[in-house]
Amino acid sequence: MVLNAAQLCELLQGELIGDGGKKVYGPSQIDKGRPGTITFLANPKYEEYAYTTEADVIVVSKDFVPKELLRPAVIKVPDVYGAMMLLIDTFSKNGIPGPGISDTAILHNSIEVADDISIGHYAVIEAGVTVGKRTIIYPQVFVGHGCMIGEDVIIYPGVRLYPNTQVGNRCIIHANAVIGCDGFGYRPNAEGHYQKIGHVGFVLLEEDVEIGANTVIDRGTLNMTRIGKGTKIDNLVQVAHNVTIGEHTVIAAQAGIAGSATVGSFVKIGGQAGIAGHIKVENNIEIQAQSGVHTGKNKEGSRLFGSPAIDYTDYLKSYAVFKQLPEMIKRLEELERKSGSEKTADQ
Amino acid sequence: MVLNAAQLCELLQGELIGDGGKKVYGPSQIDKGRPGTITFLANPKYEEYAYTTEADVIVVSKDFVPKELLRPAVIKVPDVYGAMMLLIDTFSKNGIPGPGISDTAILHNSIEVADDISIGHYAVIEAGVTVGKRTIIYPQVFVGHGCMIGEDVIIYPGVRLYPNTQVGNRCIIHANAVIGCDGFGYRPNAEGHYQKIGHVGFVLLEEDVEIGANTVIDRGTLNMTRIGKGTKIDNLVQVAHNVTIGEHTVIAAQAGIAGSATVGSFVKIGGQAGIAGHIKVENNIEIQAQSGVHTGKNKEGSRLFGSPAIDYTDYLKSYAVFKQLPEMIKRLEELERKSGSEKTADQ
Amino acid sequence: MVLNAAQLCELLQGELIGDGGKKVYGPSQIDKGRPGTITFLANPKYEEYAYTTEADVIVVSKDFVPKELLRPAVIKVPDVYGAMMLLIDTFSKNGIPGPGISDTAILHNSIEVADDISIGHYAVIEAGVTVGKRTIIYPQVFVGHGCMIGEDVIIYPGVRLYPNTQVGNRCIIHANAVIGCDGFGYRPNAEGHYQKIGHVGFVLLEEDVEIGANTVIDRGTLNMTRIGKGTKIDNLVQVAHNVTIGEHTVIAAQAGIAGSATVGSFVKIGGQAGIAGHIKVENNIEIQAQSGVHTGKNKEGSRLFGSPAIDYTDYLKSYAVFKQLPEMIKRLEELERKSGSEKTADQ
Repeated sequence: MVLNAAQLCELLQGELIGDGGKKVYGPSQIDKGRPGTITFLANPKYEEYAYTTEADVIVVSKDFVPKELLRPAVIKVPDVYGAMMLLIDTFSKNGIPGPGISDTAILHNSIEVADDISIGHYAVIEAGVTVGKRTIIYPQVFVGHGCMIGEDVIIYPGVRLYPNTQVGNRCIIHANAVIGCDGFGYRPNAEGHYQKIGHVGFVLLEEDVEIGANTVIDRGTLNMTRIGKGTKIDNLVQVAHNVTIGEHTVIAAQAGIAGSATVGSFVKIGGQAGIAGHIKVENNIEIQAQSGVHTGKNKEGSRLFGSPAIDYTDYLKSYAVFKQLPEMIKRLEELERKSGSEKTADQ
Repeated sequence: MVLNAAQLCELLQGELIGDGGKKVYGPSQIDKGRPGTITFLANPKYEEYAYTTEADVIVVSKDFVPKELLRPAVIKVPDVYGAMMLLIDTFSKNGIPGPGISDTAILHNSIEVADDISIGHYAVIEAGVTVGKRTIIYPQVFVGHGCMIGEDVIIYPGVRLYPNTQVGNRCIIHANAVIGCDGFGYRPNAEGHYQKIGHVGFVLLEEDVEIGANTVIDRGTLNMTRIGKGTKIDNLVQVAHNVTIGEHTVIAAQAGIAGSATVGSFVKIGGQAGIAGHIKVENNIEIQAQSGVHTGKNKEGSRLFGSPAIDYTDYLKSYAVFKQLPEMIKRLEELERKSGSEKTADQ
Repeated sequence: MVLNAAQLCELLQGELIGDGGKKVYGPSQIDKGRPGTITFLANPKYEEYAYTTEADVIVVSKDFVPKELLRPAVIKVPDVYGAMMLLIDTFSKNGIPGPGISDTAILHNSIEVADDISIGHYAVIEAGVTVGKRTIIYPQVFVGHGCMIGEDVIIYPGVRLYPNTQVGNRCIIHANAVIGCDGFGYRPNAEGHYQKIGHVGFVLLEEDVEIGANTVIDRGTLNMTRIGKGTKIDNLVQVAHNVTIGEHTVIAAQAGIAGSATVGSFVKIGGQAGIAGHIKVENNIEIQAQSGVHTGKNKEGSRLFGSPAIDYTDYLKSYAVFKQLPEMIKRLEELERKSGSEKTADQ
């Protein structure tokens, strides 16, 4: 997407000073402005960069009076932050495909597709799938039979949806994520050889869920693995079979949730954290990165750290003493020497 | 797959009471039965749900005498658990493609393919590959030159097999897994710049191995990375170059095994656990989630926890005291005060 | 690739003894030599294997005098290690596609492609992309609009490049890696519902970077996520938005770097380690596997361990005492008993 300064000015409903023909392909930070970009002077403490930036267009407050000549074209607006958000939003839609179904996409003839959807090259959509209005399926996606995909959904290249996955309206699924594969369930026989347990459940993503790149969500064994509305999951996260996650929860990259765990709403899970199987994490709990939650006995609103995870502040206090342990054992030995005591253990 | 109650009754060799025409598309749990499903009363303590379930068919023991009227069609069988397993297995094969090679699959003319195999749309199979009987290769898979794939193998969409990967009979590889990529091997030159070490080995998956979605297994440098028969690996697991894993071992999601490590048979590795390079993990060892095994000096059958990992029970005992450390240092200070002792370290 | 003993001898500029017609498809270790391979006697302590190996060709030093008859064809060279490296390099290029653009690759007509490039089946290359000389794009890759790909780059099957990704010369990107997806950035509204922050930045891989399979690198919010030249990143690694990584740094599998962190040059990051957002990791720091670096206050050249990470040696010393904690608390109790002291906390 390329817009010139005049078009940008119209979009922002501002006042243009300078060359309206300057071409812009995206926004930039004021201290890192590059040619061909539009930048922003939102915070007065960055004013010095306004005079040196290489950006071709700059957005300033309508009240801003420059001390020196500004090289870029200038757009004056009442609300610089608002203008910045609008521009980022505009340019972030750059490259999003328009409606249309590629000749090379393979759609089973039983598929119901709404108007205005986009299906990219080499996508494969199996029997019995439904796809809602304005949904975008990028190239090279696989949608297994019986999947139900809502409206205004975006599915990036290489995503794999196993059969019967349900994707709510306005969900976003990033590249190479896998949704609905079999859970890790086996039954050892008498010799300890693992016999696979078939999985016939499915995954339900409610509305407004976002799934990161290369994340994996297993289907339920018999019923569903459910991700509640508004929940956001980062890249490379593992969600095992039969897990239930509430609403408006955030899960950072590389975290893992073991089978049949229940996670509440408004929970925050840090990167690389782990949650054990079959436990419950209450609403509003905050789990520090790399922690391992092994028990469901934590109260709503608590903050956890460590593996096994305990109260965040308690962990930090204990860890502060942990760092002094080599000195502490010397102090203990000194006391023992004074009291004539001997080591009692190991004897 | 849709079966009606009469067909299901025949499959289970049971006795049907009620409407044989009711349509079923899958099984459900008795406490979560949905219309269009078949459910099971296996455990008498769930009897109450039998009278309220929305499932359309219910399987009960031939000796079961209902206290109230059952709304669903009823199938009486001698062994409810056995019937349940048979039905899950039947429905879990739902959507698995039948034999046939898609017109859009690209197969090098040197490929030997057995009868009854299935190769999906936009799969790419390079020169010198062999594919055994009844194997299913889903759409969008890449099989590099010289790969040998056994019989009754299932390879899900988006899997990438680098050249010379060997896949044993009855293996299952889930979506977007990558098998056989180069190991992480470099030689720093005099300035500390890393020079890539070429990898000419391969990966061998023995029989009955299952590999989770988005898992990565590196090829050997010169020889092979080997996964023993019956071993099951979950999603997002890393297996580095030259690793050898024994038979009937299970590795949970997001665990990682560093280069040239050897893992025995019947080992259980928890989620997010790590195993250091070049060490040996003996048979029957159980490694707790998030643990880091740094040494090969652990005995067969031991159970490990912590990073670096120690005996499981010892770790828990130490961790119990860890939680008391802030109090413990106060008690030490109190003793020092009483004995007239001063801090000796840090002085 | 198949070469016979005579061809190999010519390649190594050695002296052949025995059957020049023996066919070789790859190298092998001397203690694991298989038929159809070439092996090496580089270290005299492995001499015994020279007499029993099943390899068909063996490379030995020109000064080597065998004590028994050697079954394989023999190639004598001045430098066995050098010969070994040359052969591994030769065979590791096995199966790499030659130049040419597949009929099934979809290229927007605005793409500039240099001579001698290779683009595989079912690759999709969007508008405005440039591809440098001798670059290889394997099948099923997706390259978003505006990406700039340098010379001598290798992009393996299933890689997804989001729009505007810049890939320097000689970079290697392994299968199913995702580069340039949106960062994990949201703004909670008054009810705590997360509103997505658009991402308009991009990812820059400088020259000679290698990216592992299934690794994910998020684009910058406004500017770039940058990976410095010569840096090597293993499989399943997460690099969040706005991160800057220096030159010649190595990052092992499953490590994660949170948003806006800065990592220096010549840093070594162990497997499953985590680096918190917005901090700086100085040059030459070495981070032990599974560690969690929470602060930027570590000096150049330091070595870190633990979560939160502290000095490596200090961590090990503290951990050594940690293991003795159950005994230590008994010793403390014994002292308290002797001094007539009582537990003062918890009362």
